[in-house]
Amino acid sequence: MSNLDDILKSRRDTRHFTADKVPDEVIEKALQAGHWAPSVGLTDATRYFLIKSDEVKTSIKKLFLDYNKKAEELTDNPEQKELYRSLKLEAIEEAPIGLIIAYDRSVLNQFTIGTIGSNEAVKFSSVCAVQNIWLSLTEQGYGMGWVSILNYYQFKKILDLPENIEPLGYFCIGKPATNYNNQPMLQQLHWKQKSEAPICTEIKEIHQINVPEFDLKSENEIEYKSDFNTLLQEKIDSKTKPVGSLGTLESLAFQMATVFETLNPKIVKPNIVVFAADHGIANHGVSDYPQDVTRQMVNNFLDGGAAINVFCKQNNIELSIVDSGVNYDFPTNAKLIDAKIAKGTQSFLHVAAMSESEVHFCFEKGKSIVENIAKLGSNCIGFGEMGIGNTSTASVLMSLLTGFPIQECIGKGTGVENEKLLLKQNLLQKALDNYSGQAELISQLSYFGGFEILQMAGGILAAFENKMLILVDGFICTVAYLIASKINPNIKQNAVFCHCSAEKAHSKLLNYLEAKPILNLDLRLGEGTGCAVAFPILKSAEAFLNEMASFESAGISRK
Amino acid sequence: MSNLDDILKSRRDTRHFTADKVPDEVIEKALQAGHWAPSVGLTDATRYFLIKSDEVKTSIKKLFLDYNKKAEELTDNPEQKELYRSLKLEAIEEAPIGLIIAYDRSVLNQFTIGTIGSNEAVKFSSVCAVQNIWLSLTEQGYGMGWVSILNYYQFKKILDLPENIEPLGYFCIGKPATNYNNQPMLQQLHWKQKSEAPICTEIKEIHQINVPEFDLKSENEIEYKSDFNTLLQEKIDSKTKPVGSLGTLESLAFQMATVFETLNPKIVKPNIVVFAADHGIANHGVSDYPQDVTRQMVNNFLDGGAAINVFCKQNNIELSIVDSGVNYDFPTNAKLIDAKIAKGTQSFLHVAAMSESEVHFCFEKGKSIVENIAKLGSNCIGFGEMGIGNTSTASVLMSLLTGFPIQECIGKGTGVENEKLLLKQNLLQKALDNYSGQAELISQLSYFGGFEILQMAGGILAAFENKMLILVDGFICTVAYLIASKINPNIKQNAVFCHCSAEKAHSKLLNYLEAKPILNLDLRLGEGTGCAVAFPILKSAEAFLNEMASFESAGISRK
Repeated sequence: MSNLDDILKSRRDTRHFTADKVPDEVIEKALQAGHWAPSVGLTDATRYFLIKSDEVKTSIKKLFLDYNKKAEELTDNPEQKELYRSLKLEAIEEAPIGLIIAYDRSVLNQFTIGTIGSNEAVKFSSVCAVQNIWLSLTEQGYGMGWVSILNYYQFKKILDLPENIEPLGYFCIGKPATNYNNQPMLQQLHWKQKSEAPICTEIKEIHQINVPEFDLKSENEIEYKSDFNTLLQEKIDSKTKPVGSLGTLESLAFQMATVFETLNPKIVKPNIVVFAADHGIANHGVSDYPQDVTRQMVNNFLDGGAAINVFCKQNNIELSIVDSGVNYDFPTNAKLIDAKIAKGTQSFLHVAAMSESEVHFCFEKGKSIVENIAKLGSNCIGFGEMGIGNTSTASVLMSLLTGFPIQECIGKGTGVENEKLLLKQNLLQKALDNYSGQAELISQLSYFGGFEILQMAGGILAAFENKMLILVDGFICTVAYLIASKINPNIKQNAVFCHCSAEKAHSKLLNYLEAKPILNLDLRLGEGTGCAVAFPILKSAEAFLNEMASFESAGISRK
Repeated sequence: MSNLDDILKSRRDTRHFTADKVPDEVIEKALQAGHWAPSVGLTDATRYFLIKSDEVKTSIKKLFLDYNKKAEELTDNPEQKELYRSLKLEAIEEAPIGLIIAYDRSVLNQFTIGTIGSNEAVKFSSVCAVQNIWLSLTEQGYGMGWVSILNYYQFKKILDLPENIEPLGYFCIGKPATNYNNQPMLQQLHWKQKSEAPICTEIKEIHQINVPEFDLKSENEIEYKSDFNTLLQEKIDSKTKPVGSLGTLESLAFQMATVFETLNPKIVKPNIVVFAADHGIANHGVSDYPQDVTRQMVNNFLDGGAAINVFCKQNNIELSIVDSGVNYDFPTNAKLIDAKIAKGTQSFLHVAAMSESEVHFCFEKGKSIVENIAKLGSNCIGFGEMGIGNTSTASVLMSLLTGFPIQECIGKGTGVENEKLLLKQNLLQKALDNYSGQAELISQLSYFGGFEILQMAGGILAAFENKMLILVDGFICTVAYLIASKINPNIKQNAVFCHCSAEKAHSKLLNYLEAKPILNLDLRLGEGTGCAVAFPILKSAEAFLNEMASFESAGISRK
């Protein structure tokens, strides 16, 4: 046979062979034909392995039988299953020659022309060699059958093929015992009919791809907030992950982008400010610690030994310490921001904690501290506090501002035990009963407020005005937020509730505010530690929005 | 030219054409030659698309240029770069005819003979057609050039090819302007020399596979070190904070110190390993994503664009990607750990997902991967996974191993909606009903397992043996942990449950394991993202234990 068309047409996937031997010259000529096949980037990656040993053939046959059984199970149609079982799909043991055609994956370790779009080009070159060999054998009067029903992992193992050698299959070679009436065997056996002609379509035009271009759009063009929100949601949904699968990180990223008014939000110079002050109520045994601990802890902050120092250092957050009204005269210290209103408040068990003008001072001081931080370029601020007795102050303020009874607004603070908790509750109830003042916010704050709590509230309002992300810490900080939100409810747009503390009143307050905290780690330390520990979660939200590939850029199928 | 050897030998990958037209009969005859190529299981999956339009050609040329630029960047050798730039690698605009040879993947949706060992047989049939066409054109005096340097995703988009049509490349056809002195062009230009002869080896014997047994016996009891624990608790309580006020951070620090057996524990070289594999059950519509997304996402991991890349980078965590059994042959890539057991599991709806020896292979592979990471000095390892359909596998395993009914072990996966959820539930119930195997773990794992899940289980056991901190991610990873804990319950001492996912079965499983997760962020992405996002919390635990001042050192009053 010498005419190409005749060879192409009479080439069969052969599974029936005579017992005739195959001369070495026939195989040599055929492999030479394979060698003339294309080789992407001239990688010459095709490798051949010959099998003549009966023992080797028997082992390979066993692998085939194992896998073929699995194949049988894949059809539920009983007729199809029966027909399938009757098909002869290999001649591993009968064919005189076995050939493994493989490619060497390791050629890809070097710079290889033609493989950037798809590394499969190397493999395809070897498949072209298969076809050349097939045609050469056909021309020489021999036949070949391709066995692909194998577990390739075990196949490589039993043949001890190196890891980088990837077989395309096992090929049975011999003298054909039949030409299947000059048609594919599966057609002869009525498994399927080969289509008459190739299926070819002409492509006459290009389909335009619309890739949303976020970064090119200048901010000014975004006229309406709803457009911005749509673009932002599209950007989030274009990331290579199922829609919504990053849960809270997605809502944080959305919030961050809307607060910073950009599709590529970046947290700049994050800062945690710890406001410290003393409370007159601490003299009534509401805390297990002496009031002096407020001072001691401020020194600990300045020395870098407190929890908030450690966490801010860990997460590259600037830390600012404010003396809002500690009952101690600190020496001048550049690291301590002096915003002292007085040396602690009065005890609200008997008198107003502070005057109404002191309330105003607190708001102003808090605002100016935050404005200074904003001026230095920070767009993300966390609020923390230190003050022995300040859970009592916070509980009373929460009860007054939410209407919840005091026993639902109270917790163990930094560690009051059960009997003491009851005493604390009775004491605070008494203080509330004593209060004959107005229901106006200013009167309530002046009677029951704390210097650090009100400075935080003022600071939160200023952070909102400066378009900063506001990190809300634990129970006391959330009460400061509650106060600020009574003045400007819009602050919620910028607020991130960092954690739900072990203080049971905190989860009640968060529910009241319809706020969903990021962490639930039973923290009850204050100092802004919840903000600092939660901060990397915000960074994760920032990172996924800015750095993850989109389906388009990574070439990944959307659902 | 009529002699086969002459045709085979003179066939060239042609990039230089004359302006001569190509008569329609030439193309028809060539496509007919392609049609005579083998077709696995008579699937007739090859499809042809002709391009004559200049506009279409120009757009394709643009795609080539984009990608070729990337290819240039892959070599740092300036001479090689220069030579590469000088090479003509396509003739898209000059060649009179463009041809796309593609295959229709959707033929695999039905029962297809010859594809169980590897579904690539369909694609290989089309490559054989390429070679036939090449030879036919050569015989007719024409030439063809294979252009594979393309972004196939964009290529399909602009040509509006359906999702199931997979192009092998773009082929330029015309009258050759040169025969490159009767050798490959790259040889003529001294890029490389083609080897003289094919490389062929005879295989004369079989290599025995030794299946290692995994030890199902529980490990030796670890001695209770009460002295160490007392010292450790004292250290934690001496820190300048109320006792217990750092909540979960304190228990994490305690665990870390006991796992690392030191009062000053440090996380060294943290590593997250993502195991990827395909699942036979994915062919039954349990996921909204096509199976191919597993492969696509592995490439995304390797390219650095996935969520896990971004979070690992953010938190300085080493990332390792493992091919446990993806249904695709990845090229050798130093960044990808090859632990492929097979190209996906079988569908457990009909047959066992894998053999028992494959179960053992999985455990061994997982162990050796983790042992290698431990040897490099890491003492903290997170486990992540990728595999379309693996929530179904995980649900069935959970149901079998916990005794909970399947409907309580099932979730939406990466986003299946309500009706589909019911279908998924019925399908998995049917698979469980079909199972007539033993109640022994090994039988259950072989019938219902997934390669990546079992490798994770093996890896978790090895991590425990190597005294590493084990970071457990979401639902699928927790099922791997469940399997490992059935073999060695002591692993719990080292396990950190990083988050509770939005997958409702996950919280049920965590409760069953009496495990308290660190985060509740509604994540449901997998990939180990929960481990990566929770990691800074572990660093906070480490930091407070090692860096905070004690009451004594800071001179602060204890309560």
